[in-house]
Amino acid sequence: MAPLIITSGDPAGIGPEIALKAAISGQKDIVLMGCPHHLEQVASKTGIKIDLEVITEADLGRLEPAPNRLPILPIIWAETPKAGHPDPRNAEQIIRSISDATALAQSGRAAGIVTSPIAKSVLYESGFGYPGHTEFLASLDNDATPVMMLANAQLRVVPLTIHIPLHQVASAIDPDLLMNTLTIMNDGLKRYFGISVPHIAVAGLNPHAGENGHIGNEEAERIMPAIERARQAGIEVTSPLPADTLFHPDMRKTYDSVLCMYHDQALIPVKTLDFYGSVNITLGLSFIRTSPDHGTAFDRADQFTSRPDSLIAAIQLARKMANTASMTS
Amino acid sequence: MAPLIITSGDPAGIGPEIALKAAISGQKDIVLMGCPHHLEQVASKTGIKIDLEVITEADLGRLEPAPNRLPILPIIWAETPKAGHPDPRNAEQIIRSISDATALAQSGRAAGIVTSPIAKSVLYESGFGYPGHTEFLASLDNDATPVMMLANAQLRVVPLTIHIPLHQVASAIDPDLLMNTLTIMNDGLKRYFGISVPHIAVAGLNPHAGENGHIGNEEAERIMPAIERARQAGIEVTSPLPADTLFHPDMRKTYDSVLCMYHDQALIPVKTLDFYGSVNITLGLSFIRTSPDHGTAFDRADQFTSRPDSLIAAIQLARKMANTASMTS
Repeated sequence: MAPLIITSGDPAGIGPEIALKAAISGQKDIVLMGCPHHLEQVASKTGIKIDLEVITEADLGRLEPAPNRLPILPIIWAETPKAGHPDPRNAEQIIRSISDATALAQSGRAAGIVTSPIAKSVLYESGFGYPGHTEFLASLDNDATPVMMLANAQLRVVPLTIHIPLHQVASAIDPDLLMNTLTIMNDGLKRYFGISVPHIAVAGLNPHAGENGHIGNEEAERIMPAIERARQAGIEVTSPLPADTLFHPDMRKTYDSVLCMYHDQALIPVKTLDFYGSVNITLGLSFIRTSPDHGTAFDRADQFTSRPDSLIAAIQLARKMANTASMTS
Repeated sequence: MAPLIITSGDPAGIGPEIALKAAISGQKDIVLMGCPHHLEQVASKTGIKIDLEVITEADLGRLEPAPNRLPILPIIWAETPKAGHPDPRNAEQIIRSISDATALAQSGRAAGIVTSPIAKSVLYESGFGYPGHTEFLASLDNDATPVMMLANAQLRVVPLTIHIPLHQVASAIDPDLLMNTLTIMNDGLKRYFGISVPHIAVAGLNPHAGENGHIGNEEAERIMPAIERARQAGIEVTSPLPADTLFHPDMRKTYDSVLCMYHDQALIPVKTLDFYGSVNITLGLSFIRTSPDHGTAFDRADQFTSRPDSLIAAIQLARKMANTASMTS
């Protein structure tokens, strides 16, 4: 069983802390990328006793799981990370550790990667030219089209548009983008979640999904044409549904995932239902990638009191996805 | 104790059915406006045994509560209502019953009104010129500025804008509208909910509340100026907060209500948390008005299987609001 690689993300954030907390919570078959010396410091400040075992990539295929032992693929930071104080001089190593982890997943030596949070503003100073983690991973993966899914035990959602101002959302809804996203959702739900015929619900853009054109035309003019194309391609997908009545327990029984039109429409329900246990998944890549759905939390990283729930959920989900994919492929 | 008046709404919808179900569930001090003959039919089809007692407005001050007895202020429909088949010939009576109920609440003979759903399209044929129930009530109340609040046991939200296309939301965010809405929320939370210093959270418009201007400027340019005015007026109100992380249990402890920027931003969390028990409240009127947060359900009104949960919650909340207002006034 190939291990999952956990990246440290920005080592001045809560990534190293929550990775160690996840390791002692009993997560198995994980390898952490980080600086052993720095991780010892973090463990000490967090009050964690764990045996950090430095390994090389050649060891990945022959790891012997042992309780309370965490294999480390070593990173040598340019500057010793200081919790809460990101240092742009570490940007190059942060970026390289992500691409190294990606290469291990692409080659199959890792079962997938679970990425700890980075701070784009820190990396920009080092010439990082991507809107975020996800786009960088896609660029490393033959310019794949990444699709962001947020998931917890109760709900899986995909926002069609993500980090754009709300007033730009309507014009960003494009039939090709919709069709590509529905196709990647459908493939991902089959491959990684073992759903033979995924049922995808689509949220309307406007209140009451436009109420037959009384409150907006995007449902008829932009969304339905893509839905019809998707149906012709054999994808089970609803017409645009009113978003406010789409996420209660009775409705959640009727679909496997929801395609939402914008960031908050997708993230409000998933984070309202389970704030600490939601996981970010990138579909559309050639490998498995999950991450916690929170940021670096520089503002309280030096307190060492962060909850590892989302990272643990991200590790468990990545493992489950890997197991499912190995059975269905 | 003055009673609450329940209107029938469109009698071809589920209003009469759920009102009878609410009555036998033990709701006290309520009076239903409806046609006794028609209500007997609905009771029979629903399998409800209840004693319908026809009263006049003069009786409102001297009702004797009795188990299984429901006082009726009679309406004579132009056409016998048929479940699922709205008849525009009843529109005039539907409208008149709403204005009659309003007058009773304004004069204090009723403690408030709980309105069953209407269908605007049916009323438009009779010359009804309002976007909805709420605006009609406001026009009957010295052209008050109505503020729609949705509430259940877990959350109270107010959408700043309501039934407009999403692409119009950003430009509809106006500092005066924000200031008026915050003022009415603050007054309503004091008067009807007994909160001496209400804490109001404000949701940002854009993802991550604009991320300091990286994802939109409305937070800084349109929302913050109104928040500063509100603070000068003594209202406790937050800066714009990211909407996706605003509704989980830990955050909900930090405020009494949330002002959202648009329909789905407000209604997704409240209906996700409690779909059947959410209540629509109109603040800003001179009297108490609540209603269930669903529609006429013409498509299944002839099945007589609708759940009265939201109407019951609306009755209970209106009663609680009346009790609180009588103690604080």
